[in-house]
Order: sequence, then structure tokens, then C-alpha cells
Amino acid sequence: MNQEYIKADKWSIIEEGFDQETVMSSESLFSLGNGAMGQRANFEERYTGPTFQGSYIAGVYYPDKTRVGWWKNGYPEYFAKVLNAPNWIGMDVLVNKEPLDLSTCISVDGFRRELNMKEGWYKRTFKATLPNNAKVQVAITRFLSLDLDEIGAIDYSVVPMDQDAEITFVPYLDSGITNVDSNWDDKFWNTTSVDSKDSRAYIEAHTMKTNFKTCTFMGVEVHLDGKKMEMTPEVSQKETWVGHSYTQKVKQGTAFSLIKFGGYTVSRNHKTGTLVAAADSALDKAFALGFDALLQNQKKAWEAIWQMSDITIEGDVKAQQGIRFNIFQLNQTYLGTDSRLNIGPKGFTGEKYGGSTYWDTEAYCIPFYMATKNQEVARNLLKYRYDHLEKAIANAHKLGFNNGAALYPMVTMNGEECHNEWEITFEEIHRNGAIAFAIYNYYRFTGDYSYIPEMGLEVLIGIARFWYQRANFSEDKQKFVILGVTGPNEYENNVNNNWYTNYLAKWCIEYTIKQLQKVKDGYPDDYKRIIGHTRLTSNETDKWEEVAKGMYFPYSEKYEVYLQQDGFLDKELITVDKLDKMERPINQKWSWDRILRSPYIKQADVLQCFYFFEDHFSQEMLEKHFDFYEPFTVHESSLSPCVHSIQAAKLDRMDQAYRFYLRTSRLDLDDYNKEVEEGLHITSMAGTWMSIVEGFGGLRVIDDKLSFTPRIPKKWKSYSFKINFRNRIIKVTVSESSTKFILEGNEQMSIRCKGKRIELNPHEEISV
Amino acid sequence: MNQEYIKADKWSIIEEGFDQETVMSSESLFSLGNGAMGQRANFEERYTGPTFQGSYIAGVYYPDKTRVGWWKNGYPEYFAKVLNAPNWIGMDVLVNKEPLDLSTCISVDGFRRELNMKEGWYKRTFKATLPNNAKVQVAITRFLSLDLDEIGAIDYSVVPMDQDAEITFVPYLDSGITNVDSNWDDKFWNTTSVDSKDSRAYIEAHTMKTNFKTCTFMGVEVHLDGKKMEMTPEVSQKETWVGHSYTQKVKQGTAFSLIKFGGYTVSRNHKTGTLVAAADSALDKAFALGFDALLQNQKKAWEAIWQMSDITIEGDVKAQQGIRFNIFQLNQTYLGTDSRLNIGPKGFTGEKYGGSTYWDTEAYCIPFYMATKNQEVARNLLKYRYDHLEKAIANAHKLGFNNGAALYPMVTMNGEECHNEWEITFEEIHRNGAIAFAIYNYYRFTGDYSYIPEMGLEVLIGIARFWYQRANFSEDKQKFVILGVTGPNEYENNVNNNWYTNYLAKWCIEYTIKQLQKVKDGYPDDYKRIIGHTRLTSNETDKWEEVAKGMYFPYSEKYEVYLQQDGFLDKELITVDKLDKMERPINQKWSWDRILRSPYIKQADVLQCFYFFEDHFSQEMLEKHFDFYEPFTVHESSLSPCVHSIQAAKLDRMDQAYRFYLRTSRLDLDDYNKEVEEGLHITSMAGTWMSIVEGFGGLRVIDDKLSFTPRIPKKWKSYSFKINFRNRIIKVTVSESSTKFILEGNEQMSIRCKGKRIELNPHEEISV
Repeated sequence: MNQEYIKADKWSIIEEGFDQETVMSSESLFSLGNGAMGQRANFEERYTGPTFQGSYIAGVYYPDKTRVGWWKNGYPEYFAKVLNAPNWIGMDVLVNKEPLDLSTCISVDGFRRELNMKEGWYKRTFKATLPNNAKVQVAITRFLSLDLDEIGAIDYSVVPMDQDAEITFVPYLDSGITNVDSNWDDKFWNTTSVDSKDSRAYIEAHTMKTNFKTCTFMGVEVHLDGKKMEMTPEVSQKETWVGHSYTQKVKQGTAFSLIKFGGYTVSRNHKTGTLVAAADSALDKAFALGFDALLQNQKKAWEAIWQMSDITIEGDVKAQQGIRFNIFQLNQTYLGTDSRLNIGPKGFTGEKYGGSTYWDTEAYCIPFYMATKNQEVARNLLKYRYDHLEKAIANAHKLGFNNGAALYPMVTMNGEECHNEWEITFEEIHRNGAIAFAIYNYYRFTGDYSYIPEMGLEVLIGIARFWYQRANFSEDKQKFVILGVTGPNEYENNVNNNWYTNYLAKWCIEYTIKQLQKVKDGYPDDYKRIIGHTRLTSNETDKWEEVAKGMYFPYSEKYEVYLQQDGFLDKELITVDKLDKMERPINQKWSWDRILRSPYIKQADVLQCFYFFEDHFSQEMLEKHFDFYEPFTVHESSLSPCVHSIQAAKLDRMDQAYRFYLRTSRLDLDDYNKEVEEGLHITSMAGTWMSIVEGFGGLRVIDDKLSFTPRIPKKWKSYSFKINFRNRIIKVTVSESSTKFILEGNEQMSIRCKGKRIELNPHEEISV
Repeated sequence: MNQEYIKADKWSIIEEGFDQETVMSSESLFSLGNGAMGQRANFEERYTGPTFQGSYIAGVYYPDKTRVGWWKNGYPEYFAKVLNAPNWIGMDVLVNKEPLDLSTCISVDGFRRELNMKEGWYKRTFKATLPNNAKVQVAITRFLSLDLDEIGAIDYSVVPMDQDAEITFVPYLDSGITNVDSNWDDKFWNTTSVDSKDSRAYIEAHTMKTNFKTCTFMGVEVHLDGKKMEMTPEVSQKETWVGHSYTQKVKQGTAFSLIKFGGYTVSRNHKTGTLVAAADSALDKAFALGFDALLQNQKKAWEAIWQMSDITIEGDVKAQQGIRFNIFQLNQTYLGTDSRLNIGPKGFTGEKYGGSTYWDTEAYCIPFYMATKNQEVARNLLKYRYDHLEKAIANAHKLGFNNGAALYPMVTMNGEECHNEWEITFEEIHRNGAIAFAIYNYYRFTGDYSYIPEMGLEVLIGIARFWYQRANFSEDKQKFVILGVTGPNEYENNVNNNWYTNYLAKWCIEYTIKQLQKVKDGYPDDYKRIIGHTRLTSNETDKWEEVAKGMYFPYSEKYEVYLQQDGFLDKELITVDKLDKMERPINQKWSWDRILRSPYIKQADVLQCFYFFEDHFSQEMLEKHFDFYEPFTVHESSLSPCVHSIQAAKLDRMDQAYRFYLRTSRLDLDDYNKEVEEGLHITSMAGTWMSIVEGFGGLRVIDDKLSFTPRIPKKWKSYSFKINFRNRIIKVTVSESSTKFILEGNEQMSIRCKGKRIELNPHEEISV
């Protein structure tokens, strides 16, 4: 781990003491989001030290058309950028006309920030001595409302400490922002109006090119010593900025505070021309409730989320803090109510990995949302891909495939590919398989088959067609091969016969053929519609089967393992533990060619297949493959440790499983990959959840029944989690000596624990 | 071929008739250059039709820092752009106040352009009826002086045809230009002064970032009916523009003409602060001579060039025109007098392939310059690499190599890598081998060993060290392998064991070890200096030898051929002739992944090795490999047909050799690759020369002697070329019935023809 300044706490993320060095890291860690918008934990007041300013609106992006190098045929039109949105949190604070800026203060004492995950708020307190020697005590509470998801709230309070002082608050809106990752000082926002009305202000701006229209707004109340004041602000406006100035003489020891409600109304949710009115309506609701009541609602909303999704760990505060941080951030990012949205790898905490949807969603996030939410949420995530099927077919067509073959984008905002590196965009095609797997997994877990005849089968047909066309027959091998791919291990590019990809391709075809039969038998109307639409013939599916049956799988007789790809054994097979620590992480220390020709694995690749299709392989095979590949794995993808943790647990290697668990759950808190300043690793957080529930808890669905094989790390006294399985909620508590189950609801249910069948009665604790 | 509008002519490139569709193509084909500067054949007068405006100055470039995608560790700081330079040729022409613009004229008749290659000038004539119905006859002659290489000259003459007219010439300079390939409307030039003095004008501008300082200048004379006039121009100046206006009432049938001398003085050649003075000095010289005398000098200078480098072909005008076009453009691009310069793949004719130096220079250009120039020219090209050795070592170090290993850049302006696609920059490492081969080839041809002890051995040591470190031992194969490379066939990326690369690596090491011994024996002082400097030990060279001896070469027993790389036989081996013509060129029709997994070959790869090391392989082996690989070759690199032409000739397949010859020699004239608008393929033009001299003429150097195996295409009556071999000049004339040799100079010389030794006496024609 690379940092340790976050205090261990069961429910909160806490930093104590002001350190300019940790500001950017904390800006990521203390980020807030409510599914509709989010922002890094930037200071409201001016800050001239190193900072990465970022506010983000769900579904609002920018197409960057920058080109370098030799442009490849088939590249997408643009590279999507997660777009830094106008700033609504900003507030200049002046004490006796001196701006408060923690970077220039003579001293900053008692600095503390807390992100209270239980209740969904963020608080910052400190005492500062300004360059003019004025001393103030400051407390700021901020949250993004889950109830009113266009509203964020700030309570900013300043108390003069050693003498009376003149305090000025200048809450403002600013649309003159840029992206950190822009090549030039490009502006992405076109501001069309800046307006003020009494204590409210509005900036209307739309994104260049994509033309997302937004109104960024604020409304303000000021309080002196707890009493609301009627003050008329001094308004100042610039082309992309509006600020309201409130100045007040404040007695020593008295609090002058400002409540700021702000946020965005966007054209994704409102009609053009109504954004300011919608902003007013949101502000009206917020002011009608007031800060305290809105905060109470926030606490209730988070209580409801935790009610279902909390995982408790007794005996290991850091592990407890880690898992809650993961669950909290997932819920801040995506709440599952809007099927147009998806789960961006950095959520609302940074710009990296432009784009909102990767295969991470299907491979890592769906299990979490399936088990901790109403199953509609996972279905929405699957529907998202169905809605994009035509675009996936168009994408494949652009690359030379035909007859309805579909290639889903590697990175997307709206169903179109929006990443332009050939080795990723064109070659990391295993993503298609993860989407098919998620369909299988959704049905396996929820028992809701309806998605398949309604939508999923068409997705599966497009995917099967792709695999059929993408493979070719090798005369040399007398097998079907898949050439030129990048597997999940992105430290290999353009390899031949990536075992994981070949295996998925075969599975996708076979699974699709089975579903065709099942839909034909059980849903003849849907079948007719789909066959009519796709013009699929049995001649075509016969050819698919030929490819599936004749698929080539690279295998080493010597090591008795499937090979990650052709030629893997030509590498210098030096295990990671022999590498100098100075060389790590290799993606920051080594040139790309060196990484590519090394045996080092970024994240589970062969082992990802053992994770997805665990039941296809024996425990002995898992062990052989784990022992062969894990020692070459550098886990430099956030998605790596969770899968390995689950597999290490299955192999009863609980110490190793626990180390992987800490790495996945505290990846960002402890900054394992030296990049937390850029934002959090949101999608891998769902992997953390899996590593407890599937890894330690051993949850599986076998023959339509929940099954558990509970294990517990040595350090832990107990842990518990809840699962929503087919609308039945079951709580599982594991300790070294026993596993307890409590079933909610009214009906009986049978499960398996360590292979033994157990009948659960509602509200009756069963201990095994 | 894709166009046929260029008239067949032995000495000129001619277009007749005005066609907006061919303007951009002709702008490339009629380009002018003099080694120091050059420009596309843009019209001097305004033109509002589709055009690609480009003027270029040797050695002046721009570092573009645009970034997209996931930036790779070890990438260069910038991507070099060939920079569009300020325009000095521009001249607005008004007839009765109506601007002359061929795109808006009512009619354009008798349009003709001629690029006279024999004499080095470009002439355009036409009759135009302007929108105001004024009719004029126009003739423009332009050339870039070889004598005064900072001076270009234009004689622009207008004759009112059916009535008197007021003619206005506004010759101007313009530094407000951009690149066609810039992502934004970026300006690359910072203009610091715009000035006029009498009939002269100057714009001083420097490039952003690289800070190349330039003065773009012009001086003007006007003539009425052949008589020089003293006119004072009306001067108008803007921030980045200066124009001088000359207006004159001109009688019907009388010529009003303007002589414009213009060009650049640059800080590469003059001290800062003296550029305007240098411009004046250049203009003084030009005006002292006058247009006609300067043109006479031009003709003489080109006569001298042709004297040595001309190739004549009797009986095939198109073939004749093709080879002269190639020789002409090579000489326009690089004259070999400045060892800081090199041969950019587009010369002064376009922006593509930012950068001036590729392995093209060593692999394709050096033979031409060695045989048609003083051998100092080739030595300068080798010295260029020696001068960049430290940067090549730094480049390798950046990628993780050490101990003085050198990796020369794939693309460079100044010795630093300036291209940023990993599969090229990091992996197309065979370029290192071409540099070593050029050293070997230079010595073989010129007999000048001095370069090796003086400079070359250090280059070789750096290269050998690189190969030694880049290979690794495969336990699986029990051989040394080279993983993750891109060969000359860039339609494969990141392959393992590219046979050409592995072969070169082995050869480089073995050649270096031989030269070490030779320098040790023959040049002990140099040896001592070099060993002291490089700290090379026999222990190190022993390890090199181990790698060279144990190198792995992929081979197919079934086909009895070396394989282009591991796994080549897994591809769908459908030959090019089976491809639908609509699918070609594949680099414009197919996505990159499809190209990569196809067997199609962009340019000689395995066969490149057979070209370099012809004497290592039997004729039978060549035939087998040619028959295996050529059918998969799409020749979409300009560098492809020449090597295949040479090999087809060697295999006595003269029809095929001739077809390849036409393709290489008329690649741009007939626009085989559908891209001539972007500029000409300069470096491959040297390959055209090789395909006559080495292909048809069968020139080789064997045991220090020139050797010929002449063949002649059916269609040709005869052809001739001259060779400067070790400062002896020999002219060879081949017809179907005989080959004639004439030796210049005073000494006897022995050569071989078809294996037979022949003694040549000076000035005595020998016919074989």
C-alpha cells in the first residue's frame, strides 16, 4: 500500500490534519455522488495549492476528435471525454477582505474531514489563521440529495475566533471550466446565459458538439448566530460566472453561515426552454424543506440502502471500512433507476477512461446490483445493451462483419464505440462474451427468463454471429482459431488464440443455440418474431456449431495448463516476486513493448474463465492454473484482486484470499496503484463485494438454489451480508464456529450450505 | 492504375486542359524543390476550388504534443509535424478589378502545365474568361534555383486578349498559414515583423516551440511589353501578410508581367538578427543576374545532375518518363551537401508521415545516392546516424535497455524519436538492422572503409548491444527468440519471431564482431578509443555470439519456407488474386484488425531479407519464397514493388518484373495507391532506380568488382544508366542483343558481365 493517512473507522472516511500533499488524493476519496451528479471533494473556498477540480453530470459527455498517428480505418469518429461540468459548489470566503485559502494561511489547525457513509454527508472543519492574522473557525457540511437528485446542499459556517471580523461570502457558479485531460485550453461548454434573481443564480450552458443543455443553479440563505437573515446580495456577473456577495460584521465567537443549494437541471430530463424553471422548482422544494430536513431525508435514504446492502465485519475495522467504502461509492455512482445510464469506471470522481460503460458492468457490477437491489436494476443494465444492439451491429459492420453480427463497444457513452486504440477497440472483443455471460448469469440468479425471449436472444444471436465470423479455420492446426485479439490481460496485445476469448466464443455459440431451442419451445411468438427479424436459419446455426466444436485451445502438456495465448511459453518466465520493487507498478516504470513481451498479467485472464465457468473445471485444474498464472500476475488492474481472492478462498488459501481482499477493498483508501488522485476505481468495487459474498461466503447458485461454502479470514470474528435472491431476502452471518441464516418474508426456502440442504423458515435463525 | 491524365513525354510532366478534379493531384506531381525548400504546385493567383496548399523548408518542423488514448510509458515527447511554411509564391491578379480565380472563370481554355525535368522549371499557360467577361492569356514560369538555394523565381505574364484592360498584380507574403493535418486551427508560426522596402518585402516569423527563425521574402520587377518599368507599389500590411499592388492599363495584345523572386532565409544557416540582411543579399544576387540568366544557370545545374544520373529508355515513353520523374524528384528533395538533412518520405510535396528520416534512407535511398553522386553524399547520410548515436542510446535507455544499447528512431527530425504509436515506435525495431546494413553496403560499394573505424563501429556496437538485450531465451524452444515486433510488413503488429528481424539481429551481431576484429587489426588507435569509450569486453561479445548462434528462425517443413513470423500458417491463406477488387487497397477498405489477421503483406518482409542478403540464399530458395509470399503481397507500401521487381528479374520473370517496374516508377504519376493528392512517395523513388539498375541491369558488387547480369523488358529497345563505382564512372547500355560498357577516366577497370570477366579501357566501348 502507498498511503495510510485515512483513519480506520467503521462508518466514516476521516482525515485529520491539513497536508497539501494529500489534498488531491482526498479530493477523490471524499467524493460525493447521487447517481445523477457528483463531484470530487474540492474545497468550496479558493484554494491555490495543487488540486484537481471536477464536477460531473451523469450521461453528459464530449466527443474529442483529436487525431494522432496513422489513423486506422474503422476508428470511431471520436474519443469520448468524461466532461468536467460547471462548478456550483464554489464560494469565495473573505475575512476582513482577505481571501481564505488554506494554501496561504499562516496556520491551519484541527483540520478534519469526514465522509459519513452511513448517512451520506461530508463535513470539513478547521481553524485557520489568515495572512492578515484573522483567526476563524470553519465548519462545512455538504451532501448531494438522494431525494431531490438535482440538488446538492452546503452549509458553510465561519466563526471569528479572537476578535470581531467582517466576513464576506461569495457563493458563485462558474461555467468557465476545462478538463484536466484536454490537449489544449479547449473549452467544452458554450455559455448562453448568466442570470440572477434575488438570492438565486443560473448559468445556462450547453456542451459543444453534443449539445447537452444544462442549467447550473444556486440559491442561498444566510444565517447569523443561527438566525436566518434577509440580506440582499451584491451581484456580479461575467461571461461564464456569477457570484453573490454577502458581507457581515460578525462578533467574535458568533457563527455566520451560508446555506447554498445548487446543482443542475439538464435537457436529458427536461424540455428545452424549461431548465431555469426546473431549477427554480428544485430550489423551491429544497428551501421548503430546509437544509436540516433535507439532511434528515438523506440519512433515511441511506439507511434504506444500507438496510439491504450493508456488509458487517467484526474484528477488523480496516476491512469493515473498506467494504463499506466500496458499497457506498457504488451506490453514489449508480442507483439503477435510469436504463440510459451505466456505471463509469471512475464514477463521478475523475476524468480518466472517458466513457461510461465497459465490460466491467457485465463482468463485475451486475452480481452486486442483482443481489442488493430490486432485480429490475440488473434488468435495466441488461436492457441498456439490448437498446444498443443496432449500434453494436453497425459497429461490427464498420469493421467488415455482416449478416447482423454484433460487436459491442469497448467503451461507450451512447452505444457507439468511443475509444480509438486499435488494440483495444478492434481487438479486445472478449467484451462481447461478458455481455452474453451476464444474460446467463442474470437468469441463473434471478430466475427471470423473460429477458431472453423479450430482448436477450437477439443480443445473443448478434454475438454468436460475430464469433462465428471472427474465427477462421487454420489448415495448419486443423482447428478454428481466433487471431489478433487482446484478452482481459491488456498487457498482451494482438495475440493469437487467447484461451479465454476462444473459450467464451465457443460457450456463447453453444449457449445461444440452447436458448434458441428453449425460446422456440416455450415462447413460440417471440421465436417467430426473432427469426423473422434476424433471418436466422438452421444452416447458419449448423455452421456456428462447427466452429464451436472445432475451436482450438492452446494447452501445455508440460505444465498441464491451458495457455493464455499461443507462444506464451516463449517468454522469460520469471515470477513477479523476483522483480525489483523499484520496477513496480510496471505500467508506470516500463515501456509498452517491454510489458508486452513480459509474462506479466494485469488482471485475471485464464483465471477469469475459471471464475465465469467454475463448474466446467475441477478443483485440481483450478489449483494448477492458479499456481501457474497468479505468480505472473501484477494485479495492476483494479479488477484483478477480487477474482483472485475468490479463487484463493475456494482453494482454502485464506491468508492469500484475505490479502487480495484488503487490496481490492482498500485499493483506493490505501492507494495500492499510486493513482488515487485521478479518481476512484468504481467498477472494481463491485468485485470487492463479490470477494466477500462469493469468496468468503462461497455463495453460488446451483440448480436454482442458493448455496454457500462459508469461510472466514483468521483476523475476523464474524461477518454478515444480505442477499436478495429471487425476491427472497436472506441474511447470512458467518463466524469461525458457525454460519447463521435468517430469511425475511413469509415463505419457506431451501438452500445449501457446504453441500447440505437446509430448510429456512421465515424469521427463524438457523445456525449451521 | 487510377489516373491517366498526365501526357506521356520523355522529359516533361504535362497536363492539358483544366480540370478541378485533378488540381490537388497535380499540385503534388508538379511540385518543385531544390534541397533547401520546396512547394506544391499551388497556383500563384487566388484559387477557391479544392486545393492543398503547401510550402516547406528543409529541417524546419514542429513538435505536436497532442495526446489521445492511454498514453504509454516511453512514448516520445512529441509527434513531429512537417510544417507548412509561410507562402512566398502568392500573387493576387485582378483584371479590371475582378480577381482571377480559375475556379470562378466563365471559361478556361488551352490550360497546360509542364514540369520540365531536364531543365528544372515549371510552366503554366491558359486563356481565361473572367466573370466580368475580361479575356486574358496567362503564362507563368516558376523554378527554385539550385544555384541560389534561398531563391525561387516566378515570371507571371498576363495579356489582355480582346480589349485593353487594367491589370493589377498583388504579389504577397503570407505567414498566417496552418497545416492541413492540424487537429485544431492551431497556428504553428509566430510572426514577429512584417516589413516592406521599395519593391521588396519581408516577414520574420519563428515556429512555436522549436523556435526556428525564418525570414520569408520577396522582391519584384514589373515589365510591360518586355520593358522593365519603374513602378512604386501600393503597400498593404496586416499582422501576418504583406502585399504590394501594381496596377497598369494594358493594351490588348500586350504583355504585362511580373518577376517575383522569393524564398526563405533561416536561422539554421544564418545568425539570428541577420535574416533580413541575408534575404537582401540573396535578392541582390538574383536581381543582378536577372530571371533569364538565373534560369540559364538552372538549366546548366540540372544538366550536370542528369549528366551523371540520367537513365534512358528507348521504345517506352511512359517508362522513360517514370524513371526520370523519380530521379528528378529525388534530386529536388536531397542533394547530399548538408549532413544535418535527410530524405523525408514526402520530400517537399506534402505533410504526411511527419518526420524527415525513416529506414527508407538506409534501405532504399543510399544505393541511388552512392551510385549517382560523389560518395561523400552517402557518407553524409551515414554520418547523420553517427551524429545521432547518443540520442539513439538515450532512446533505448528510455525503453529499458542499458549499457550503451542503441535504438535508432523510427521517425525523426533531429535524432529523437518523434512518432508515438507503440507498434511502430517501440516495435518496428528492424530499422536498427537497416542502419547496420547500410554501413556494410556503403563499404561494399565505395570501398571506403574509413567510416567504420571513424564512426561506424560505434554505431554497430550500440546496435549489437540492442539486439543482444532485445532477444530472450525461450525454454520452450531452447532458442533465442525476439518477441513483440513489427516487421517491414506493417500489416502485422506485435508478432513473435519475425524472421526478417531475427535474421538481421543475428547478422548485425556477427558483422559487428567481424568489424571489431578488423578495426583492432587495422586501426589500433581507433580500436583503443572505441573500446575505451564503449567499455566493451570480450565477455560481452561472447554473450552476443551466443545469442546470434542460438537464434530461432520460424520455418515450415511443409512449404519449405521461412515463416514471416510465428503463427503465419494459422491465417486464412487466400491469395491476393482471389480478393474482390472492391476490397482494395485494403488499408482504405478494411479495419485494422482485419488487416492484421489476414495474410496480406504490405511490402517485402521475408523477401526484404532475400534482397539484402541475396548471397546467403540459393536461387531455388529465392524462387520458393517469392512464390510463397508474393501472392499474398498487396504492395500497398510504395517501397514494395521495387524489391519485387528486382527479384522477379533475377528469376527471369521479365513480364512480372516489368509490371512491378511500372508500378514503382509511375506510382504517383498513375496514382496506384489512390493518395497522390497527399504528396509524392519520394523515398520509394530510389527503389525505382534500383529496379532498373539492380533489377534489369543486374548490378551487384561481388568481390570488390562491379558485376552485371543485364536483362531487358520485351517492350524496350534499349536502356542505359551510369554508375559511379569507387570514383570510376561507367556507362552501361543494354539492348536485347547486347550490353555496352563505356568507362570514363584514365584507368583500366575490370568488371563482370553474366559471370564473365571483362576488361574496360577508358573511353572504349565494349559490347558483350
